[in-house]
Amino acid sequence: MEELDAGECWRLLGEAAVGRLAWCEADGPVLIPVNHAVADGVLLLRTAPWTSLVTHVDDSPVAYEVDGSDPGTRTGWSVLVRGRAEVSYAADRHASDSHAPDPWPDPWPDRSHAALVRIHPDEVAGRRLTR
Amino acid sequence: MEELDAGECWRLLGEAAVGRLAWCEADGPVLIPVNHAVADGVLLLRTAPWTSLVTHVDDSPVAYEVDGSDPGTRTGWSVLVRGRAEVSYAADRHASDSHAPDPWPDPWPDRSHAALVRIHPDEVAGRRLTR
Repeated sequence: MEELDAGECWRLLGEAAVGRLAWCEADGPVLIPVNHAVADGVLLLRTAPWTSLVTHVDDSPVAYEVDGSDPGTRTGWSVLVRGRAEVSYAADRHASDSHAPDPWPDPWPDRSHAALVRIHPDEVAGRRLTR
Repeated sequence: MEELDAGECWRLLGEAAVGRLAWCEADGPVLIPVNHAVADGVLLLRTAPWTSLVTHVDDSPVAYEVDGSDPGTRTGWSVLVRGRAEVSYAADRHASDSHAPDPWPDPWPDRSHAALVRIHPDEVAGRRLTR
């Protein structure tokens, strides 16, 4: 098991199509897959403003994870970002819009994405399992 | 976005090679990829007894997630199990051992797997995003 340096962690975060956002509720953790964009050391997610995610994460500690695995060779890697989430609204601009910020996450579900979640990292760590 | 029934959730859990275990620490959530086995409605994980995971999850609420995604078609699915973890020891028996329980998780890292984590589900939910 090899630790990854910060540059490699950010490279993998930049390449990953999908990650998982985790937060803590009163009765324990929740995590869901979501896509993201990376902008100046901050992770950006967009989602519908009525989601459970938005209700729970604003100004709260969260974790975001991306990984890749190969069952054939029993190898894989993962990157974990821990930090604080910040929610803002009026983010419902399509990625194809010429006025959209760049980079801009482009969520897959066909619904409002008016909530923008910024994750400000406190820790970024990654590891790779090789043979 | 389509909700998956319990049978489909357990089928996907049974087929997935790797999932992510999440727990809550004082400063927020943590999640790591790990492999698992499914036995009679309980998820089984094995890991080294000195891991941060083992220190934090015994008799605590956890979540375990498996997913699959296809960036080409922007479709995917996920299953989330929320429940309580229970840690026991002396689980360091190889999956190839004829005395090993069946099913028995077979972790990829080459080190002790003397800690067995059982996840007793309180909730199992899944969803699929189609076009």
